[in-house]
Formats: sequence, structure tokens, C-alpha cells
Amino acid sequence: MSTTPTAAASGGSYPTGIGTSDRESISLLGHDLAGELLGQVTFGELAFWLVAKRRPTPGEARVFEAVLVSLADHGFTPTAIAARLTYYSAPDSIQGAIASGLLGGGSRFLGVTEDTGTYLNAIVRELPAASTEWGDDEWDAVARDALRQTREAGRRVPGLGHPIHKDGDPRTPVIIRIATENGTRGPHLKLFEAIGRTQHEIIGRNLPLNGAGVAGAALADLGLPVKMLRGFALLARTAGLIGHINEERETPIGPDVYSSVDRNAVYVPPAQSTSAASAQPEGE
Amino acid sequence: MSTTPTAAASGGSYPTGIGTSDRESISLLGHDLAGELLGQVTFGELAFWLVAKRRPTPGEARVFEAVLVSLADHGFTPTAIAARLTYYSAPDSIQGAIASGLLGGGSRFLGVTEDTGTYLNAIVRELPAASTEWGDDEWDAVARDALRQTREAGRRVPGLGHPIHKDGDPRTPVIIRIATENGTRGPHLKLFEAIGRTQHEIIGRNLPLNGAGVAGAALADLGLPVKMLRGFALLARTAGLIGHINEERETPIGPDVYSSVDRNAVYVPPAQSTSAASAQPEGE
Amino acid sequence: MSTTPTAAASGGSYPTGIGTSDRESISLLGHDLAGELLGQVTFGELAFWLVAKRRPTPGEARVFEAVLVSLADHGFTPTAIAARLTYYSAPDSIQGAIASGLLGGGSRFLGVTEDTGTYLNAIVRELPAASTEWGDDEWDAVARDALRQTREAGRRVPGLGHPIHKDGDPRTPVIIRIATENGTRGPHLKLFEAIGRTQHEIIGRNLPLNGAGVAGAALADLGLPVKMLRGFALLARTAGLIGHINEERETPIGPDVYSSVDRNAVYVPPAQSTSAASAQPEGE
Amino acid sequence: MSTTPTAAASGGSYPTGIGTSDRESISLLGHDLAGELLGQVTFGELAFWLVAKRRPTPGEARVFEAVLVSLADHGFTPTAIAARLTYYSAPDSIQGAIASGLLGGGSRFLGVTEDTGTYLNAIVRELPAASTEWGDDEWDAVARDALRQTREAGRRVPGLGHPIHKDGDPRTPVIIRIATENGTRGPHLKLFEAIGRTQHEIIGRNLPLNGAGVAGAALADLGLPVKMLRGFALLARTAGLIGHINEERETPIGPDVYSSVDRNAVYVPPAQSTSAASAQPEGE
Repeated sequence: MSTTPTAAASGGSYPTGIGTSDRESISLLGHDLAGELLGQVTFGELAFWLVAKRRPTPGEARVFEAVLVSLADHGFTPTAIAARLTYYSAPDSIQGAIASGLLGGGSRFLGVTEDTGTYLNAIVRELPAASTEWGDDEWDAVARDALRQTREAGRRVPGLGHPIHKDGDPRTPVIIRIATENGTRGPHLKLFEAIGRTQHEIIGRNLPLNGAGVAGAALADLGLPVKMLRGFALLARTAGLIGHINEERETPIGPDVYSSVDRNAVYVPPAQSTSAASAQPEGE
Repeated sequence: MSTTPTAAASGGSYPTGIGTSDRESISLLGHDLAGELLGQVTFGELAFWLVAKRRPTPGEARVFEAVLVSLADHGFTPTAIAARLTYYSAPDSIQGAIASGLLGGGSRFLGVTEDTGTYLNAIVRELPAASTEWGDDEWDAVARDALRQTREAGRRVPGLGHPIHKDGDPRTPVIIRIATENGTRGPHLKLFEAIGRTQHEIIGRNLPLNGAGVAGAALADLGLPVKMLRGFALLARTAGLIGHINEERETPIGPDVYSSVDRNAVYVPPAQSTSAASAQPEGE
Repeated sequence: MSTTPTAAASGGSYPTGIGTSDRESISLLGHDLAGELLGQVTFGELAFWLVAKRRPTPGEARVFEAVLVSLADHGFTPTAIAARLTYYSAPDSIQGAIASGLLGGGSRFLGVTEDTGTYLNAIVRELPAASTEWGDDEWDAVARDALRQTREAGRRVPGLGHPIHKDGDPRTPVIIRIATENGTRGPHLKLFEAIGRTQHEIIGRNLPLNGAGVAGAALADLGLPVKMLRGFALLARTAGLIGHINEERETPIGPDVYSSVDRNAVYVPPAQSTSAASAQPEGE
Repeated sequence: MSTTPTAAASGGSYPTGIGTSDRESISLLGHDLAGELLGQVTFGELAFWLVAKRRPTPGEARVFEAVLVSLADHGFTPTAIAARLTYYSAPDSIQGAIASGLLGGGSRFLGVTEDTGTYLNAIVRELPAASTEWGDDEWDAVARDALRQTREAGRRVPGLGHPIHKDGDPRTPVIIRIATENGTRGPHLKLFEAIGRTQHEIIGRNLPLNGAGVAGAALADLGLPVKMLRGFALLARTAGLIGHINEERETPIGPDVYSSVDRNAVYVPPAQSTSAASAQPEGE
């Protein structure tokens, strides 16, 4: 547990580019909140600005809002069910129910957006400057190389396939179109589209680009740090969770989910073979 | 622990007005997500819609976005510091850092918005239909009554005063103006403004309307359920927390906060008088 | 948001009676952790000590351990299901799964222990010193008064009844016996037992003392602060949640719970009457 | 998002080896909770049992309790401070404060126990059966190999060094002694001790075995699954967090931590160079 303060603290001050306030004013991102931001920016624009530390252009804002809308909800996901069960158990603490839902936003669900952005960005960073002029053929060549290398490394390409939308995720072409119309379709989306065109050649079956993946590519093309993409997915999902919690308040499913699990519980004694040996070598 | 399923589950189905999906399409709020929502609504509009179960009018959307912007961040609050410390401890789990920050959104911080909306709504619900025609005098009379009753009950009026903005919160007049311009200034804001005009008469010192309170009044005037107002404050704060977490990633303060507390820790032995007697009657 | 530091900080130090450390030693509760605590106290004893700021007597420790054991798990509760769904969604973050489960420890589930302790303590605090000599008749009289007053106030008596164990909770007599044997049966348990004997007279039907309630009474008789009883229930439940998460890792139910809810989702359009009117007065 | 139920759900039942209940009884781990567990097992023993699915031997229980005690608290850690700030912000929701603290239990803090157990176990699994007869020389040879390979792979050996206890963590020898006395010192501890004897040769400076690491080795030698070791560290820390929250309730530091950070905030405008380029390739 580190006790070495960073240089920033040597004077005892805490630097921030977000917000400060005094008796008369509240400053946010270097602007007067009341006079310059309220009514002038949408919430989505502000969310972008808080991370990028610059205001999005109108085109960037439209793409960003669309991506947040695409990620806000996907029905009765495990995270929505967890939030509803938590609200049912502790209705006095709505913050706990939201937090409980967000905590499922890890590697399996909600992680695809960040994983895809990270995967693409690692390739995009190494491309030559001339790649801004490339056509589909050049991108397809890069995509094939990436797919092969990933496959050979025994890893999965993120952002491909969907358990329900097996013939194509309806969000994918719409987000690409919105990015194109607003001038933000850049190398991440171009590479992801190329992966979509070539993946069946390398993988041997058709795994269309999914909506969470295209969201990651579109956000990376906005210049947002790829390490924060999961954060934006979680922001979007917060809106969905609030909708679920409000619905749980009015027409709860929590009691039914609980009783359907509880009443169908069957006691199964532990398998002898797995109880003691997990961490032990043989012969112990 | 209830085992009685509600009527809704008698057929084994789980009703929802939010989202469902099949092989070809994703439906959200009864609309086709890809064809009818992406690029057509802002994230703020969708967040409103997910709870209200109706799309906001353009004027309502502007007010709602402004209120979310007003609540998104307030600098190094305890919740922002908690989120940063959690990110510092567990940088692999951004969802945990966001959740950690949101969990401070309880009664003391972030609760003012909901408390104010609830307080005003309890009065507004009982007003006569003719109140839509009232002028300031009638509202002031209602406000004085409410302030007196609250004071006599030994309770506090929520939404008044601010530890820093002692002469007036700069957000308050701007949100009232935006609501007025967009035609959403209704009974909650009118009553809250009347409380602002009359509070010093009853309370005996000046406690201006604060920004978290006016946010609650403005949201209640949009017809949103007052029990969900804390949820919207938490949604807004999620954007702020993501900004803080990103800043912590780049220029951390967590190590300094930690070491400044840890190095100044002083062991104080327990007071004998408080150790054992807390839950015991005297004489035990 | 308060900016007034308390007196304690005037010198810039942070007082604590818990732990401090230096280069050679770790001190916990004023004792040398390595030399005086490791191997000398059980984890349960330490948990008691950390709150009470005094080591429990051997009898107190036995009662405390038994109460924790009684609260550790109750099968597929909503909190256990939420923890499992969160682990399924984010298996890389076990802390998130535990937190998600604990967040259901609010007013409805897990709150009974604290509510019962608080209810009893409010009465016990006002009893005369002579109550230490009372027999059942005196306690029954106090219990009848309390039950009547609570009923007249339109409130519920906490700790009574159980949806499954309708004829009596099997934990209740055992915890009372253990407390009696270890000399910690005090006014809270005596009053709770009296409530158990008399509740049917006042309430008009039989609602036996439940295990969560008797746990609260037994903990309050140990002199633990009643405001922390929910904390001990949460500590106990953490052990149960870790068991559930480990089981989810080996034989998951999350995917089945998810698919059973998701596949039985039925879209229900919002009722027109409830969409806009929630926070609005009539006539708006 | 998977919609394929596992085989276990084909009959609509949910298997569990933890708990079930009916009208008369509560069963936990296949035993009658009231008749066979309450008062018969400590809370620590139950926590072991819930994961291992077998009751620990008396010796195993003593080691397990000692390890939990060693991990329960380490003063004003970032997680303890986060929990206290959350409690200060939302004192009505103790579960939120505990959860907020636990969420810092990730890779940087609290992760060492699991990381060390995992590191050792990967080596121990591959050892020959004859290793049960090995003396220090053979273990030292294995340790040197492991240290060299880890170093060559550019990775860190977990469980070594401590920012405060630079000359040796006082917990380490005590836990090794307790494990030895109770007959649970197995290959993980033997290997970890050998790493302690040889690390300075390979690493070139002295990094003594730390307490979190030795805890992981000792738990792995108890046969507990290494994937759950972080879970036990979190269970232990829950007791510490409850102590901190109770102390925050009585003698808060939250307001001072908050004001010391807030009052020392200094606005720093974003560096132009980092604002837009994070995810973009050069030339964009």
C-alpha cells in the first residue's frame, strides 16, 4: 500500500479540470455552469465533454447520443434482473439498486464495447498516415491479417456474433450510417467494417458485427479514450436501469423471479471428488 | 420472505413496457430501436421516456437536459472522492468505481432533489383545480402555511440554503427561466419560488433556494414520478463520476488522499463510557 | 455540502481506535496484531471487538458466533440470486458480485434484525432499574403495552411471522437457549420472548418470533449498538454470498434464471392513465 | 447474451448444495441449521464450509480464523476511507457503505492474497508426488526457477515486499507458525517460504514475504479454491469496514477528508495535447 505521494500533492493541492465553485459561481470544465452550460448543452454533450475535456462538435454529439441510445437497454438482461431483485429487497435505497445492476457491467456483459474499441485501437495506432486514403481493399487486407493473428493466438475477436441476432444486429448498419452522415467514420469503424466483410473467410462461419462492438468502434472514432468506453456503456445502461427500477416499483417481477427460483431449488450434496482437492496437488 | 407470486406471474410471463427483442429486431418502449430511435432521440430524451413511458415534448426535453446538466457534477464531493479511491484500489473494475460513487447518493448528498420534489408534490396534490390561475399572492399564502407547518412539526424544509452559495445558488434562476421559456413551469416550481420569497419571514434568516431543490421542482413539473427523482440525480452524477474516474486514470489524487489520511492517523483508545453501554439500559 | 471541519481535524489529524501501523508492527484495537491477536481470537470475536471496542467474554463470543451462523444464509434469496447474476455477468470482479448481493440488505430483507433490535431497545432504555428482577408477568405487561401502542400507531411490530415457517422459526428457541446458557439473555430477549407469548392476544392471529428478529434481540443484549445490527447481518450474509458465488462458478444457475425471465418477457404498453399524471395535480 | 439453458435447468430446477428450507426446518449444507450448526460451529468454520463444502478440521479452522483475522483491517486504507465517505453521504444505507468499501477489493489492494495463491498453485499443481518429502534445498531450487521464469516473462512475483514493513511483515512468521502447529503447512507455504529465502538472489534486493501473500499461501494449503481467495479477503475486510463505519458514526472523519480535498482543489485546464488524440492515430 503506497505511501509515496505524487508530485501533484507536494504543495498539498488537488488538481482537477472538472469542477470548482465559490460563493457566487459554479465552474464546470472551465465554464460558468449557470451562464454558459445550462440550457446550452445536452446531457450527452456534457458527458462527452467531461471525459474528452473538450466540447464535441455537433456531428460528434449526434453520433455520441446515438451510441448511448443504442446501449441504454436490452430488456431483461442479468444486470436488469439483479437491479430489480435488489430494489425489491431494499426499496429504500435506489442508489443500491442502480449500483447492483451496474456491477454486472464487466467482462461478459457490457464489456464488448470496450473490448472492441481496445482491439481495434491497438491496430489503428500502428497504421501508416496514408491509411486515411485507403479504400476497402486495403482495409480488408489489414482485417484479414488481424483476424488470422488473433485466431492463431487462440483469442477471440471481440464484437462479433450475437446469440439472438444471428443474421445481423439491426443496430450495426444504423450506427455506421449515422457516423458516416456526421463525418465521424474513421479508422476504427473502417477496420471494424472490414472485419465484418472478411470474418467468415477466416473464422469459417458467419459472425456478423454486433451492436455493442460497433458502438465501441464509433466511440473510438470520436477520439474518446478506449479505456473509458466501458464507462460510457455503463452511463447508457444507468438510464435503462432507472427505467427497470421504476417499472419494478409499479409492476414488480422480483417476487416472481425469487419464488420461481426458490421453489425450484433442489439440494444436491457436494461431489466428493471436488470438495477438497481444488487447490491441492495430487498425493497430498 | 414472500413466496406468493403476483397475479402477473400466474401464466409464467414477465410483463415489461421497456424492451424485448427477436432475431431481426430490437424493440424499446414499443418502438423499433434501430429504425425509430437511433439518431432520432437524444440520450436525455430516452432516459425521460424510459421512466415516463412517453416521449417528452421538445420543451420538456430541453428542461430535462438542463436539469441533468445542473446535477452532473459538483467537484470533489465525497462521492467523487470515494469513486476515485475505489478506482485507485481496483483500476480493473470501472463499474465498481462508478457504483462506489453512486452509493453515496443517499439522504445527505444527492437526496435533496428527491426530497424537495416529494415535499412540494405532497402539497401540490391537494391544491384546488383553480390553482392553475393563481398569482404570486395565492402561492405565497400556500408557501407560508407549508413553511409554518413544517417548522411546527420540527422538520426541515428541503431545498433551502447551501453551505457555499450563501447568497443564492447560481443554478436556481437559470433553471426557472429555462422551464418558463419552455412552458413547463408548473405548480411545483411556482410553489418552490413562493417558498423562496417567503422563507425568511418564517425561518428568520435567509436560506435561498438551492440548485438541487429547484432541480427536483422542475422535474416534478415534468410529470415524472417523485419517487424516481433521486434516480435522475444519480444518472446525472454518473456522467460526473466517469469524468472523475478518467481524470483519476490520468492525474490521480487517490494516492495523495490516502497518504494524507493514513499518515495523519492517531490512535485514540476507546472511551470506557461508550464501549459497552450503547444498547444497554442503565443499571444493566 | 458542508465545508466546516470538525474539531477533530483542527490539528490535521484523523483519530481512530481501530488500526495503525509502522515499520515493525501492525496495531489493531490497541493490540499487536501479530503477537497478541493472530491465533488468539476467532474472526467472530474480532468482528465483535471492532465495533464494541472491547473483547467479548467467552460467553458473549459463543452467542455472537451463533447469531452470525444463523444469519449467514437462507438459500436462494433475492440477494443471493442478484449476486449470482452479477457474477455471471462479470466473473472477473468477485467484489462486485458480493457488493451486488449485499446491496439488497435493506429494509425488506436483512433489515429485520436491526429493526427488531431498535424496536426493543427503544422500550428497554426506558425501563426502571428494577426490571432486572422481573418475571414473565411483568415482561408480558410491558409487551402488551408495546404491542397495543405500535398497533394503534398503525405500525408493524418487527420480528414477527415468517412466510415459510408459519408455525415457528426453528432458529428462535435455539438462539434463546444459547444466550441463556452463556449468561447473555438480557432485557431485549426477555421482552422479545414476552412479545412472542402475547402477540396473538393483541394481533388476533399467531405470528411467531422469527429468527432474524431473535438475532437482533440477542445482539442488542450483547451491548452492541443497535444502529450497527444491520452491519452484522451483512457480515454474516457475506459468508453466504461467497458460498453462492463459488457455487455459481462451479454449477451456474445464472444463465437459466436469465433465460427463464428473458424468454418469458411479454411487452405490455404503458397504461395511458399512469404515464403522465404521477407527479401532476388533477387539472394540469 | 446466451439464451441456451444448461442441462441443469432442463427440468426447471435449480441445484444447490447450500441451503433449502421448508415449513419446519432450515437446512444448510445438508445439516439442520438449528439443531446441528447453531452453537456448534463458529462463523469462521461456517464460512470455510460454505465454500469447501466440507467442515474444516479443528486445525484447519484455527488456521482459517487466524488468516481472516490477519486480513480484517489495515487502518485507513483507501477502501476504509471510501466506505467512510459513503457512510457520511448516505448514513441511511449501511449496506451501501460496506459495498462501497468492498468495491476497492480489486487488483491493487486486497488482490495480493488471491494473486499469490494462484501463482503458487500453478507451480504446485505440476510438482511430482515425491515433493511431499522434499526438504528446503529442493523447494529452494523450485523457487529459484519460478522466480527466474517470472522475471524473464516481465511479470512480478506477487506477495513480495510491503511499502511500510520494509524489513519484514510481522504477520508472516506468525501465520507460518500457526499453520505448522496445526498441521496445515503444505506445498504452497513451503514454496512461498522458499521464495522468501531466495528472492534476493534473483531480484537483487530484499523483498520480504508480505502478510497478504502468506495468507493466500496458507488458504491454498487448506484446499480452498484459489479462485475464491479474494472472496475470503473480502469477507475478512467486511469486519474491518463495519468497525470503520461504526467509528465514522461516532467520531466521523468524512467531513474533514472531504473539506481537506475540496478546499485544496485547484482548477487545471486540460492539456491541449491530450484532449483529442487519445484514441486517434497520428495523422487523423
